[in-house]
Amino acid sequence: MSNMLKFGIPKGSLENATVELFKKSGWQVSISSRSYFPGIDDSEMTCKLIRPQEMGRYVERATIDAGIAGRDWVSENQSDVVEVCEMVYSKVSRRPARWVLVANGDSNVKGPEDLAGATIATELVGFTKRYFSERNIPVNVEFSWGATEAKVVDGLCDAIVEVTETGSTIKANGLRIVCELMESVPVLIANKASWADPWKREKIEQIATLLKSSLAAENMVGLKMNAPGDKVEAITSVLPSLKNATVSHLYNSDWLSIESVMSEKEVRRVIPELIKLGAEGIIEYPLNKII
Amino acid sequence: MSNMLKFGIPKGSLENATVELFKKSGWQVSISSRSYFPGIDDSEMTCKLIRPQEMGRYVERATIDAGIAGRDWVSENQSDVVEVCEMVYSKVSRRPARWVLVANGDSNVKGPEDLAGATIATELVGFTKRYFSERNIPVNVEFSWGATEAKVVDGLCDAIVEVTETGSTIKANGLRIVCELMESVPVLIANKASWADPWKREKIEQIATLLKSSLAAENMVGLKMNAPGDKVEAITSVLPSLKNATVSHLYNSDWLSIESVMSEKEVRRVIPELIKLGAEGIIEYPLNKII
Amino acid sequence: MSNMLKFGIPKGSLENATVELFKKSGWQVSISSRSYFPGIDDSEMTCKLIRPQEMGRYVERATIDAGIAGRDWVSENQSDVVEVCEMVYSKVSRRPARWVLVANGDSNVKGPEDLAGATIATELVGFTKRYFSERNIPVNVEFSWGATEAKVVDGLCDAIVEVTETGSTIKANGLRIVCELMESVPVLIANKASWADPWKREKIEQIATLLKSSLAAENMVGLKMNAPGDKVEAITSVLPSLKNATVSHLYNSDWLSIESVMSEKEVRRVIPELIKLGAEGIIEYPLNKII
Amino acid sequence: MSNMLKFGIPKGSLENATVELFKKSGWQVSISSRSYFPGIDDSEMTCKLIRPQEMGRYVERATIDAGIAGRDWVSENQSDVVEVCEMVYSKVSRRPARWVLVANGDSNVKGPEDLAGATIATELVGFTKRYFSERNIPVNVEFSWGATEAKVVDGLCDAIVEVTETGSTIKANGLRIVCELMESVPVLIANKASWADPWKREKIEQIATLLKSSLAAENMVGLKMNAPGDKVEAITSVLPSLKNATVSHLYNSDWLSIESVMSEKEVRRVIPELIKLGAEGIIEYPLNKII
Amino acid sequence: MSNMLKFGIPKGSLENATVELFKKSGWQVSISSRSYFPGIDDSEMTCKLIRPQEMGRYVERATIDAGIAGRDWVSENQSDVVEVCEMVYSKVSRRPARWVLVANGDSNVKGPEDLAGATIATELVGFTKRYFSERNIPVNVEFSWGATEAKVVDGLCDAIVEVTETGSTIKANGLRIVCELMESVPVLIANKASWADPWKREKIEQIATLLKSSLAAENMVGLKMNAPGDKVEAITSVLPSLKNATVSHLYNSDWLSIESVMSEKEVRRVIPELIKLGAEGIIEYPLNKII
Amino acid sequence: MSNMLKFGIPKGSLENATVELFKKSGWQVSISSRSYFPGIDDSEMTCKLIRPQEMGRYVERATIDAGIAGRDWVSENQSDVVEVCEMVYSKVSRRPARWVLVANGDSNVKGPEDLAGATIATELVGFTKRYFSERNIPVNVEFSWGATEAKVVDGLCDAIVEVTETGSTIKANGLRIVCELMESVPVLIANKASWADPWKREKIEQIATLLKSSLAAENMVGLKMNAPGDKVEAITSVLPSLKNATVSHLYNSDWLSIESVMSEKEVRRVIPELIKLGAEGIIEYPLNKII
Repeated sequence: MSNMLKFGIPKGSLENATVELFKKSGWQVSISSRSYFPGIDDSEMTCKLIRPQEMGRYVERATIDAGIAGRDWVSENQSDVVEVCEMVYSKVSRRPARWVLVANGDSNVKGPEDLAGATIATELVGFTKRYFSERNIPVNVEFSWGATEAKVVDGLCDAIVEVTETGSTIKANGLRIVCELMESVPVLIANKASWADPWKREKIEQIATLLKSSLAAENMVGLKMNAPGDKVEAITSVLPSLKNATVSHLYNSDWLSIESVMSEKEVRRVIPELIKLGAEGIIEYPLNKII
Repeated sequence: MSNMLKFGIPKGSLENATVELFKKSGWQVSISSRSYFPGIDDSEMTCKLIRPQEMGRYVERATIDAGIAGRDWVSENQSDVVEVCEMVYSKVSRRPARWVLVANGDSNVKGPEDLAGATIATELVGFTKRYFSERNIPVNVEFSWGATEAKVVDGLCDAIVEVTETGSTIKANGLRIVCELMESVPVLIANKASWADPWKREKIEQIATLLKSSLAAENMVGLKMNAPGDKVEAITSVLPSLKNATVSHLYNSDWLSIESVMSEKEVRRVIPELIKLGAEGIIEYPLNKII
Repeated sequence: MSNMLKFGIPKGSLENATVELFKKSGWQVSISSRSYFPGIDDSEMTCKLIRPQEMGRYVERATIDAGIAGRDWVSENQSDVVEVCEMVYSKVSRRPARWVLVANGDSNVKGPEDLAGATIATELVGFTKRYFSERNIPVNVEFSWGATEAKVVDGLCDAIVEVTETGSTIKANGLRIVCELMESVPVLIANKASWADPWKREKIEQIATLLKSSLAAENMVGLKMNAPGDKVEAITSVLPSLKNATVSHLYNSDWLSIESVMSEKEVRRVIPELIKLGAEGIIEYPLNKII
Repeated sequence: MSNMLKFGIPKGSLENATVELFKKSGWQVSISSRSYFPGIDDSEMTCKLIRPQEMGRYVERATIDAGIAGRDWVSENQSDVVEVCEMVYSKVSRRPARWVLVANGDSNVKGPEDLAGATIATELVGFTKRYFSERNIPVNVEFSWGATEAKVVDGLCDAIVEVTETGSTIKANGLRIVCELMESVPVLIANKASWADPWKREKIEQIATLLKSSLAAENMVGLKMNAPGDKVEAITSVLPSLKNATVSHLYNSDWLSIESVMSEKEVRRVIPELIKLGAEGIIEYPLNKII
Repeated sequence: MSNMLKFGIPKGSLENATVELFKKSGWQVSISSRSYFPGIDDSEMTCKLIRPQEMGRYVERATIDAGIAGRDWVSENQSDVVEVCEMVYSKVSRRPARWVLVANGDSNVKGPEDLAGATIATELVGFTKRYFSERNIPVNVEFSWGATEAKVVDGLCDAIVEVTETGSTIKANGLRIVCELMESVPVLIANKASWADPWKREKIEQIATLLKSSLAAENMVGLKMNAPGDKVEAITSVLPSLKNATVSHLYNSDWLSIESVMSEKEVRRVIPELIKLGAEGIIEYPLNKII
Repeated sequence: MSNMLKFGIPKGSLENATVELFKKSGWQVSISSRSYFPGIDDSEMTCKLIRPQEMGRYVERATIDAGIAGRDWVSENQSDVVEVCEMVYSKVSRRPARWVLVANGDSNVKGPEDLAGATIATELVGFTKRYFSERNIPVNVEFSWGATEAKVVDGLCDAIVEVTETGSTIKANGLRIVCELMESVPVLIANKASWADPWKREKIEQIATLLKSSLAAENMVGLKMNAPGDKVEAITSVLPSLKNATVSHLYNSDWLSIESVMSEKEVRRVIPELIKLGAEGIIEYPLNKII
């Protein structure tokens, strides 16, 4: 169908964050437990919920035109697709996912080389095999159907390659990270033919722009204050240089209004300084998007 | 009691949305599971929780001065009240409620006329009787105590008249919408004597204005950007014409600040154009009310 | 450790509100069910979760430098600490906690003096003993391990001293408030030595300023509108005088933009007047902080 | 269809108890949230879930052959059906449902006669009208769509006729029972033609026998013990006379085994006496059915 | 370790049923959310929770001595293990799991042969490939990471091979079962060396006997009654012949006590007959095990 | 009041187990969230829900006649009451509660003597003070308001005295049990005057007998089988000697029926032997009470 873009929402751990991100970007995606088809309020798009593990396969095959999934799975399947951009979900709890090599807390494994001859369980069989084979370490890699951490706790294998954000589940199970093998962030990928189609490419780029504007606004706020004319320079100099402050005259007065955008963390530092410099009527307000 | 307005909050499907709407409009309504009386932080108002089916009855009788309920139930009871305004809860999931005629998916019913002699179950007995009688189709309409869809599935009746938003529950049960009989939206209704009392009328109008301002702001956002003076006209011409943009000078510069209000959907269209036209420092911020 | 502030988050009824308050103030505090240590995204701070009953003890002893707890418990333990400021969680549901003397609904107790010789159960044993002893009323005060209301219902004691916000639980149990003994609000307290240390004091004051800015913004909103030049005076005179309105020229026009901050309740009153005075394009937007 | 019985399970408050009762009686009824049709593992029966308010209507009309519903609703609708037997769900929490006349706790209503001219809200409009009309008390009875207790609390009506088991919800709302108007128990009802059909009647009677056997076994247990021959008479005389005890010889001994059935409450009384009389090896075991 | 049996509990859909089955058989298995190791109150056993998909692998490799898993997965992996016995979880809701070929409800697929050239998604890749290859039907079988039904709904593949008990989820999604490919029941499997070890084999057989005794007792009950001597033959002839009835003399009487075991369904048939034949004091009691 | 016994149910961790135990013993105790008074279906008893920490206080003072609480708390308060009997809740998960001395996992504390001068937090202040003072170890014991484990993790104190069943929470927090200070089981205690009153004492003893009979039946089952006359001696010799087996003649046969009571664990051992010895028709049935 021409002028219709088929987009893949990643099912599972990124699902809610992606729906929320679309919402902030102006699209209502509705996922119902009664239906596998997510709805979207854009007559030029349809959505499908797709496992991250399979996103690359379906984008490559043009079942969908574009979609979001972790780079780990896109590369695991060695899918032949276009990577449009990274989508760094920047909230504190959204550190990059790290694939790590994990052994029992009391084992003697110091590095990958200590695992020659061992059995390693993982969901990421292809990547793990390539990783050890590139280092000429002979290992037996086998597919794990989930609960992978339990396997090394239980002695069902010698080590695992598992994904983690903070490492806390691993520690809580008495396991130990031997080393990190790969970091992964979500990426927006597109089918090659779709990317070559001008209408589809513009649509994909529109989506990418708006999603990234919403991500950029996470943890960012607007700060607005009034200041006497002779303090404006001092005040603007303590504001973060991310964007130039917007300064405008006030009516019947030599005061000015100053407005700027910064992260919540910078606000913590800036406000005590602004007070000292004589800014008044300081207010902070929330932002939806920063372009 | 003079200078005290008694207001009816609709119990049930509109209850939470109404409480949230009052909150956005500046009133805290607190509904406790321990008490039937909702509290409200306005010394000139008291609230009662009332079933939509009975709202008209109690407003007509002056038990309460005004209230919100679906127009379907107000008209079912043919209550003699003033309809002050519609309250279109505009979120995507809040399409108008539709009362539809529903038959089994595999029945031969093509229209109301195919139901002559049939038994029809519904909660809206009065409306349904009037509908069929106006068309001279003899039917047996009987009151259904809920789970109305089950009745036609189970063969307990030939068809039903039931309310739906999206039709998905009906389809999921293997039923089929024959035709739509009525669309209904929530309305704010007032007792006739209360409406004639100047103080009460002003109070009711204040409530109506603020609730509508909050509804108008749903899915709307503010967009602010800086632009060189010679681009202002081009930029303002791509902004939706809902409200004129607010344009002001920036300090010590020939740039201007442009600020406008639009729906989230328009933002999707507008932002790529603004970037092309040279707007900078574009930010989007949320709104509570638009008057 | 120098340049490191140890801060106590109150466990229990104020816990979520405090974490949310820090979030609004620019700090992410993460409390995990797997760990007793809340994390905080500030390299100059560590947090501990501490019962309000024990906060004074640990601040006094310098186990932590500062913390938030109800003034009731700080004074119960007669802890020797600095009270930096009150933290009035101002939302409607956050009235000051009141410690009240409670008896059975049908008892004859009119005032504390009617309880001579009686047994009184309470969690606040020290305060209650001092209260009755100052009034020369001999009573037997005993520590209650919770479910204190049940004790007077059950006849296990003659009266209780219990904390309440609205009194509704007390009434629901058929009990009666005899009189109020003390009102309590949360306070930010600091260890005396920490307060004397310049770096720690500045850090504590930074926290206090930002938390109070966030509290000040609760239930407050920004209102922005355009007005013809000759209406500005009339319009600004109906705005609440909390902060001066910010007024600025519009481009190529004799209209002005007016912006002000007020409580949601004032908005209810002001908007009908602004409309009458000719204001246009009125929008209301949310605030995070007011300094 | 011949040799097929259509049976109505009451939807709502009796639903789970009825399904459990069928289970104890040897039938697996499966109610799925995905389907309106309950399944049953008996090739001679089909089930439907039907509101108690409508059970009489559908049995009378032969839509179903038989069903269980409260006698209150069967009589409200004055359905022309056969009442096969009462089904007294005997667990402690299953007291007969009582329809009571309820007024505000502080009203002066002493009896029905004090309500002349009043408005009474109830779900049981027909019964209530007949009740007051038989006593020549003119009242305005109106249908209540639920939350009936709230109506008298809220002053929407003068009194209500409502169903209750223990009266505790009524008391908790500050209301008062004026008097009881009717007691209701579940009944098994049958269509008149179905009852006249020999095969259907035998099937209905089989169901009635087994359901009643299961109900009879609720709170009943079996008690078994050994006793010397000369104590048998004394022991059997303290056992409840509900059923004769089963006494049998033991092998190579002059001891006897005694076995009897009684309620759990009688066990509390009997066991201390049995110990005194020299019974040994006393065990208590659970029962499923007593015929 | 000698005299220690390592046993695999299947994680997932059979997990709770298996724990409950061990409980009925006299073993307390405790699965904690804090630990991957289930505990068991038998000093001769340890347990591990293992995915059914991997059970065969770990039993074959002697990581565990024995375990329970569906025969589908044991055969998928072509594990070289001993199948000790079937474990037919006989409750109504536990029909054998069926692997079925599923296509869209409105497709033209009538049998496997209509799928030549198609893409089939399944978790059971090995079995599916063998199935089609034995029939010389060329298909592309690909591994599905779950939500397999969604794939055919969504058009991501042409057909799926999926497991189902009742087919109701398939129907609810608008899909259609083309044909059944395999039925699967849980089996108890053992490692070959463990089975050759006399102590381990005896232990495995003890477990098998007790688990099967508990399964045999599901839906079975004991029935006990008294009867006059001349009715015993008639009565015992209507009892199911599963086990001989136990008949014993009553003390000082020519009545006899008759006791037998049967399924709950047979009780429905038998009780009306027993009453007609003069049996008295009929009671039904629950059973834990039948050997 | 004469002939009325006031009984205390322990609120909290033993609450549900106690209510269930009373239910098995023939008393329905109903605890409602709307009321502090548990109901009981015995016209000679009333119940109160009381914290274990306060049970001794109220029994000593005759506010109640008897109650159940942990011996730890009865002795903490040094209440002057009669201990009627232990109530060993024997289910696997109900090991005796142990009060243990706990330090950080990596501390050097080997025994109580290493804590001279330390601060110890505990809910059991009196016992802990006595324990250390008897050993002449000077420590600072302070009352902990809950979350005691967090205190030693957080460094708020040097060690804690805390209750545990399995030690797993302690280990999960990285703490270490230094030694056990006391084991505690629930006890049934009585007021001294109540115990001296013949009617009350008999009532208390009746309760004690029935509760203990129910506890004795936990994890116990009945086993029944038929055997040829010449195998009876061999068979009864393998049965546990807890109670003599009940053996009776079968009608018109030289077989005998054998019935015995044993624990579920013994059944695991016994059944394979019974099969070898020729027993037939073995069934196992559940028990409610063993006296």
